[in-house]
Amino acid sequence: MVTVTIWNEFRHEREDEAAAAVYPDGIHNTIADGLADHDGADHDIHTATLEEPDHGLTEDVLTETDVLLWWGHEAHDEVDDAVVDRVHERVLEGMGLIVLHSGHYSKPFKRLMGTTCSLQYREDGATERLWVVDPGHPITDGLDESFELPQTEMYGEPFDVPEPDRLVFVSWFEGGEVFRSGCCYRRGSGRIFYFRPGHETYPIYEHDTVQQVLRNAVDWASPTDGSPRTFGERA
Amino acid sequence: MVTVTIWNEFRHEREDEAAAAVYPDGIHNTIADGLADHDGADHDIHTATLEEPDHGLTEDVLTETDVLLWWGHEAHDEVDDAVVDRVHERVLEGMGLIVLHSGHYSKPFKRLMGTTCSLQYREDGATERLWVVDPGHPITDGLDESFELPQTEMYGEPFDVPEPDRLVFVSWFEGGEVFRSGCCYRRGSGRIFYFRPGHETYPIYEHDTVQQVLRNAVDWASPTDGSPRTFGERA
Amino acid sequence: MVTVTIWNEFRHEREDEAAAAVYPDGIHNTIADGLADHDGADHDIHTATLEEPDHGLTEDVLTETDVLLWWGHEAHDEVDDAVVDRVHERVLEGMGLIVLHSGHYSKPFKRLMGTTCSLQYREDGATERLWVVDPGHPITDGLDESFELPQTEMYGEPFDVPEPDRLVFVSWFEGGEVFRSGCCYRRGSGRIFYFRPGHETYPIYEHDTVQQVLRNAVDWASPTDGSPRTFGERA
Amino acid sequence: MVTVTIWNEFRHEREDEAAAAVYPDGIHNTIADGLADHDGADHDIHTATLEEPDHGLTEDVLTETDVLLWWGHEAHDEVDDAVVDRVHERVLEGMGLIVLHSGHYSKPFKRLMGTTCSLQYREDGATERLWVVDPGHPITDGLDESFELPQTEMYGEPFDVPEPDRLVFVSWFEGGEVFRSGCCYRRGSGRIFYFRPGHETYPIYEHDTVQQVLRNAVDWASPTDGSPRTFGERA
Repeated sequence: MVTVTIWNEFRHEREDEAAAAVYPDGIHNTIADGLADHDGADHDIHTATLEEPDHGLTEDVLTETDVLLWWGHEAHDEVDDAVVDRVHERVLEGMGLIVLHSGHYSKPFKRLMGTTCSLQYREDGATERLWVVDPGHPITDGLDESFELPQTEMYGEPFDVPEPDRLVFVSWFEGGEVFRSGCCYRRGSGRIFYFRPGHETYPIYEHDTVQQVLRNAVDWASPTDGSPRTFGERA
Repeated sequence: MVTVTIWNEFRHEREDEAAAAVYPDGIHNTIADGLADHDGADHDIHTATLEEPDHGLTEDVLTETDVLLWWGHEAHDEVDDAVVDRVHERVLEGMGLIVLHSGHYSKPFKRLMGTTCSLQYREDGATERLWVVDPGHPITDGLDESFELPQTEMYGEPFDVPEPDRLVFVSWFEGGEVFRSGCCYRRGSGRIFYFRPGHETYPIYEHDTVQQVLRNAVDWASPTDGSPRTFGERA
Repeated sequence: MVTVTIWNEFRHEREDEAAAAVYPDGIHNTIADGLADHDGADHDIHTATLEEPDHGLTEDVLTETDVLLWWGHEAHDEVDDAVVDRVHERVLEGMGLIVLHSGHYSKPFKRLMGTTCSLQYREDGATERLWVVDPGHPITDGLDESFELPQTEMYGEPFDVPEPDRLVFVSWFEGGEVFRSGCCYRRGSGRIFYFRPGHETYPIYEHDTVQQVLRNAVDWASPTDGSPRTFGERA
Repeated sequence: MVTVTIWNEFRHEREDEAAAAVYPDGIHNTIADGLADHDGADHDIHTATLEEPDHGLTEDVLTETDVLLWWGHEAHDEVDDAVVDRVHERVLEGMGLIVLHSGHYSKPFKRLMGTTCSLQYREDGATERLWVVDPGHPITDGLDESFELPQTEMYGEPFDVPEPDRLVFVSWFEGGEVFRSGCCYRRGSGRIFYFRPGHETYPIYEHDTVQQVLRNAVDWASPTDGSPRTFGERA
């Protein structure tokens, strides 16, 4: 049983009509439904949002969390640095982290990558096709060779991140751009997956294949026991 | 349930007294005992040797095998190229491959690496200490920060292999050398793990931690479903 | 001064009218012009072709060569294994190798990669746009963020190669596909660059930016002195 | 001509007798002598220290610097965050960064790595032998297969850094430990090299091979032109 915490900024859906129409209960709850709604899924699912005390990410919550998903966009700066420290520390200890779409600019992701995580974008609602470039990767279990999202915000290269340990998806955009849309990293003992799709005004997280990818990614990012991370002076 | 095939050249143990004394039933059977002898291990274990028809690695055997372990030393050249082709193809399709000690010079490993796989060595029976350099890796589950083998053949750098995807162990040798002793690769959909310890005249494969590493490596190298490996002309 | 040998199968241009129209002197000579025609380029340029004795790649030629470019397509199987052995050995010793377009299926590249190097393709003469995904790489010196080839043969993912050490270009194709079009590897002491563009019936190698990439790649792939590759028994 | 800035905390050498005895003019000046003292070296060398205004790392200085070397130990926390921001930004833009010994805990290195950069240590003055594990790397130009430092502080694994892009050196320590002592990274357009040797009370930076490594590393880390790092909204 994998304990999952889905973190959402949860602001667009309460303040913007277009977002509220797509995600009336918040992006986090749509993602939660997608993780739960599957035979064989073995996920204990929780949610947390910006407005809660400690943004819902107390020491206890993080200690219990095996995999944290992160969606944020307009309020990255409002995330408290003490909470970022805690998330960062837990990832290094082994907690999985799945960073979604505009979360590329979130504090935890930038802290872990060490780069600006900048990119190019265009909000044009055109088609995206994601190609599997690593068909042996567990995050691709059960997928076809590619899948399409009929309307998305475009993200284009260059994407200022370290070279991924494994590149799983590359996106093709109708407007002429490409993007490394599925990037795997290890930092400390933690597994990190950046997954591009998702926007507050398109129903991306209701898409069957996107949900499949997130279920696979949660399983892939779950901690293993490993061996001791012992530092400091030796006798 | 993971189906494991342990391949052994099985010649030293039948021709050399020192080897026969350590491994009277052959290295493959000692490894088999180590994989089986553990609560929670879920391995269906088979063995195959050089002298069998097709070296015991028929089309059917390989199709059924999830993870293949490979030990060879003095008879690398006697391994039939048709069998090597078959092993190579199965690894690219997803079969795991664990290459042991002098197997660094085996045909399947050299074919998959694309390099000479050469190294330095000294058969002096001195102490080796293996350090975990990637404590978050599943192959290190349950291990301490290091472990010792009291008597080994030394392997020293440079080791002419491609940069590993993940470097898990580095060995320290009493005589003053170091070696990248646990190297992970992906080729096609297959996971490959090279593990240095092991020699025909030292009881390395009876060592508890070595057995633990092999159990972990078998689980790590097991195939995942992934997505289609479709090649050729597109409409 | 970098000594460059451009190897070309040189068959389409002599047997096929469409290819002869685009490359009347052979692809190798067009590439040679592109490497030479530049202020500041410091390349001593040679060519070699399949029909020459030893395919023009004698021991002496290879010993003198710093960087070898390779174009082949319909006659991969006619390349002698002894020559492949020699090329392979020289790459491990430090010779650079730049593999072009359909050279993905050449014997030297498959030998060095250890995988099938398969891919998807469609010969439709549609537009390709190459995006720089690694703007800090010397192979991108002087390039814009992307460049277009108006008519190309499409290559699509999955591309069955090991994860590149550095991924430099990703292609967008008009027909909806993507491809990792610029892939860097190290094998032994040698630098290898796979560069996708190029086809016998499109004037790809006359394109200014393609020529710039090849000049950059030759400089990047040039050998360095390094330290000794010493293998075998140690005292 | 490569413009080099050597940054030193410069505190031990002014406050501690043992350090002053080894480095009377400061570690930075000994390193500067080593970079300069060589036929063919083409380095314009500057130094900067903690006590200077802006720690000697003004906007102008950093803009002019091609490669920055960093030595710090007891005063990491006194380095101003605004200067760290500036160094970080310049590395992503292409400035090379060479981090020395206890600089593993410096703010710029931790910011770029995204991990704790922790390790094990023992100040016992025993022997270290560094092995070249990547003999084709330009940082190893002119080196033997290994070299010894008769007295060093030991650093042991695990070293909590991301998997290096290229691992160049592995250290063997008399006391039984190993360490990944030469680690190459790219972040943004910048090249980063962590090099373990060096301590304030041993004359490490007067060692011929250490000086050779630093000269090689400066050349390797020098910026290339690359292509534009353009981010933000696209038309």
